[in-house]
Amino acid sequence: MKTLYFITSNKGKLQEATKKLRPLGYAVVQKDLGYPELQTDSLEEVATWGITYIQDRFDEAFMLEDAGLFIDALEGFPGVYSKYVFFTIGLPGILRLLQEADNRKAVFRSVYAYYEPGKKPIIVTGECNGTISQKQQGKNGFGYDPIFIPNGEEKTFGEMTIDKKNKFSHRGRALEKLIAELNTLR
Amino acid sequence: MKTLYFITSNKGKLQEATKKLRPLGYAVVQKDLGYPELQTDSLEEVATWGITYIQDRFDEAFMLEDAGLFIDALEGFPGVYSKYVFFTIGLPGILRLLQEADNRKAVFRSVYAYYEPGKKPIIVTGECNGTISQKQQGKNGFGYDPIFIPNGEEKTFGEMTIDKKNKFSHRGRALEKLIAELNTLR
Repeated sequence: MKTLYFITSNKGKLQEATKKLRPLGYAVVQKDLGYPELQTDSLEEVATWGITYIQDRFDEAFMLEDAGLFIDALEGFPGVYSKYVFFTIGLPGILRLLQEADNRKAVFRSVYAYYEPGKKPIIVTGECNGTISQKQQGKNGFGYDPIFIPNGEEKTFGEMTIDKKNKFSHRGRALEKLIAELNTLR
Repeated sequence: MKTLYFITSNKGKLQEATKKLRPLGYAVVQKDLGYPELQTDSLEEVATWGITYIQDRFDEAFMLEDAGLFIDALEGFPGVYSKYVFFTIGLPGILRLLQEADNRKAVFRSVYAYYEPGKKPIIVTGECNGTISQKQQGKNGFGYDPIFIPNGEEKTFGEMTIDKKNKFSHRGRALEKLIAELNTLR
């Protein structure tokens, strides 16, 4: 097993990465180091800044992740600020904002950034298209999972097991790309 | 007249500062230099980061400002992200979120940061308490002005002249503090 340090304070993300990467030969180890996040429309930019900050403070290879839910009818809101919005207006706020919306399309985006000392950072993105449900459903997952129904499914991420969600979630897809890149390197 | 460089792209803020500071002997000159804004709950932290970034790129004394509207019933939302929220869900979104709210209390906060090469930055804050109106009123000002009624008034900032708003607005108060500090220095 190779060790992969994951800079995160989010237990849900840690669990997802662990389940996804263990079968691929990686042991994910949490490092709860905070880093400044930039106000920008771009998840990539947030992740790149994070890499720059952490690399001066941590000597091993590491990865970090930033994600957001981008809702069509709300001009991409809550987007890069999904975490802040979740902890203020929350899921009831999002559902209220979409009360009269015909268009409930949304996309979940995830950016994983990986850095190995002395090498160029690897930045990968994963997306999952879907719709916002009419009400909260399911208690699995975290964040916006209970109101997001991926295309082709009838259940929200909140009603799925981690394994099922990992198959086509934004984070699952980004992780697959990251592992593919790591495998080319080695 | 002393010259005061104001790092901003916002014409409304520039106009307010000009009107407030001209009678006090300062000519405000706009410098439209962008700077990275941090994701944080603290306007002070955003402003301090801005100072650090700009001081390496600009040789004169300058000031910059960050502001936000903090709504009680929404756990402080939109707060530090007021600009982003304004350009996504906008005023209709805020009014919708408060549709059934009995508590419509809010506070406007402004932080001015001033830096003179070789000296310690000056950080001042101004606040204005008020309530969120039931609908948009007035076309003056910018941002959330048409839905914010300061305590003791019946009209929104959007229905006031700049001079009137400047008397007790968050930014007006912060600017008064800044000038008081600058006068002690000289």
